[in-house]
Amino acid sequence: MDIQGYAVHSKGGRLAQGAFQAGPLGANDVVVKISHCGLCHSDIDLIDDALGMGGFPLVPGHEIVGVVETCGDAVTSISVGDRVGIGPIRSSCGQCHDCRSARDHYCSHKTLTASPGGLGGFADRIIVPGASAVKIPDALPSAEAAPLLCAGLTTFSALCRLGSPGENVAVLGVGGLGHLAVQFACNMGMRVTTLSAGLNDEEVSRHHSLGADECFDVSSEPNLNALKGTFDFIISTVYGDVDWFSYVSLLRPEGRLCIVGASLAPLAFPAGMLIPGARTIAGSAAGSSKDMHDMLNFAAQFHVRPKIEVAPMSRINEAVARVKEGSVRYRMVLES
Amino acid sequence: MDIQGYAVHSKGGRLAQGAFQAGPLGANDVVVKISHCGLCHSDIDLIDDALGMGGFPLVPGHEIVGVVETCGDAVTSISVGDRVGIGPIRSSCGQCHDCRSARDHYCSHKTLTASPGGLGGFADRIIVPGASAVKIPDALPSAEAAPLLCAGLTTFSALCRLGSPGENVAVLGVGGLGHLAVQFACNMGMRVTTLSAGLNDEEVSRHHSLGADECFDVSSEPNLNALKGTFDFIISTVYGDVDWFSYVSLLRPEGRLCIVGASLAPLAFPAGMLIPGARTIAGSAAGSSKDMHDMLNFAAQFHVRPKIEVAPMSRINEAVARVKEGSVRYRMVLES
Repeated sequence: MDIQGYAVHSKGGRLAQGAFQAGPLGANDVVVKISHCGLCHSDIDLIDDALGMGGFPLVPGHEIVGVVETCGDAVTSISVGDRVGIGPIRSSCGQCHDCRSARDHYCSHKTLTASPGGLGGFADRIIVPGASAVKIPDALPSAEAAPLLCAGLTTFSALCRLGSPGENVAVLGVGGLGHLAVQFACNMGMRVTTLSAGLNDEEVSRHHSLGADECFDVSSEPNLNALKGTFDFIISTVYGDVDWFSYVSLLRPEGRLCIVGASLAPLAFPAGMLIPGARTIAGSAAGSSKDMHDMLNFAAQFHVRPKIEVAPMSRINEAVARVKEGSVRYRMVLES
Repeated sequence: MDIQGYAVHSKGGRLAQGAFQAGPLGANDVVVKISHCGLCHSDIDLIDDALGMGGFPLVPGHEIVGVVETCGDAVTSISVGDRVGIGPIRSSCGQCHDCRSARDHYCSHKTLTASPGGLGGFADRIIVPGASAVKIPDALPSAEAAPLLCAGLTTFSALCRLGSPGENVAVLGVGGLGHLAVQFACNMGMRVTTLSAGLNDEEVSRHHSLGADECFDVSSEPNLNALKGTFDFIISTVYGDVDWFSYVSLLRPEGRLCIVGASLAPLAFPAGMLIPGARTIAGSAAGSSKDMHDMLNFAAQFHVRPKIEVAPMSRINEAVARVKEGSVRYRMVLES
């Protein structure tokens, strides 16, 4: 099958439209005609080959919404005409202990939707296993549903696994992931504080409208000192340099700092400093199929909606530039 | 009241017997006549002033067993003649949220049993709040009960909080804390592997007799590689230099590495490396009054017994030297 996609052909290069051969369609696969795809920071890493994996040309994009156009003979979970979403995980084996324990995102045989040499969501169509395409609840418009499929899944899953209702939760960094974490957390019954560097009045007002109870500028040392021992749970969505121990210090006893932004900043403090107050640092990555299903229903019911800018897919290079300069509030979605 | 205790008078000095004035006895306090006190690595840190807190002279010791000799008028929980234990926490306020939530070991007003300028357990008597002295079950001999009060409490509490029955658990470092962690974990229904540097046949046989299912020498790189992605939970009891990421790599997805040995080795790897597989690093410190009570009952019922060497308290300086050279198997207990 011929696919029209926007591919990058060399490290850091511009995306160019081209035709690619996909398929054949397996018995368990479906063809999805793509209407929308969100632009995630990890797409930029793929374009810039941040991990040195090469694999050009490749089509990025893994926050995909579209309509099922063709089903393989063995597909039972969805039908032609269904509106579905596809997140960061293209396939998992379905047979291992993790796959059978609602932990399929840890499957050691999983493949990713957007990867070196692969054909992701910035295209007119994609072929994926039917099991990886999840129906989108009617209440969620397609453009807004797209960022839920990675940014939403990642934050929802981390909050469910490591947070609890009634807890005092901080969201560090309020961008594509963080602005969803704020909405999820306050609808899970958590008290939410946003922590941002260089906060201005306009942003404070935005954070409150997302549901935040309080907002602090963490580039201020006195602010950080005043918040020591305050939070049960901090979810960090930042990518850059972070002095991690200053955030560990903001935790209450048995508090958890969960990292979902792929920061390269080293932890750089003695392991024994986690002992007083029994504090925890954890990572979290994407979520299971069950998390995806639960998250979409939660977003539909509690009116969690990504704040997005929509652009035609033909303007993808401008969208990439906007994400790189950090001016998108809060997620860019490309539309076919 | 006059107390005869073994005090250190300067950083790293020998302990010398002397008389100290303690008290007065408050209405909520008790006098305990000490029969045994375990020698913990953190006593050595206190003697050597590892944290630069000074406070000499001081009497170390915080794994104390003895008999209640006098009760203040307001003491209701224990009586004269009761055999009791006192662990690392001398007092907590009893009024704060943490104290009322079975988290009294996090009370911000707590005081420690052995601390700079204080009078700890290497003495004939100690005055503590009645609430901090817990009755020792009859099944536990006094000498063996002593190490349970800190080493036992710390490992039991961490295993209860972060481990689960049926899990694959590793104990890193099998000394005073580790040899109790092995016994607790296997009696909690966990599969236990010991990880030690420079393991010999005699030690392997000892670890199996404690209940370990498997034993690995972690100074061997091939051993470490073969264990990647194996454990749900690793409890680290080691003090020295550790390449932490090599142990994080041994965790299964959502696995937890819990640090109870006060290691100064920095974590020294990018925070984002915890994201794949959603791995966790946590600290854990001592335990609550409830943990202490539960741990003693557990040890009595499931026959968890510290392996100890007993020496008269008058030979405390030899005992300190033995702990420093690392030749004690597994805990030194001083007897009055």
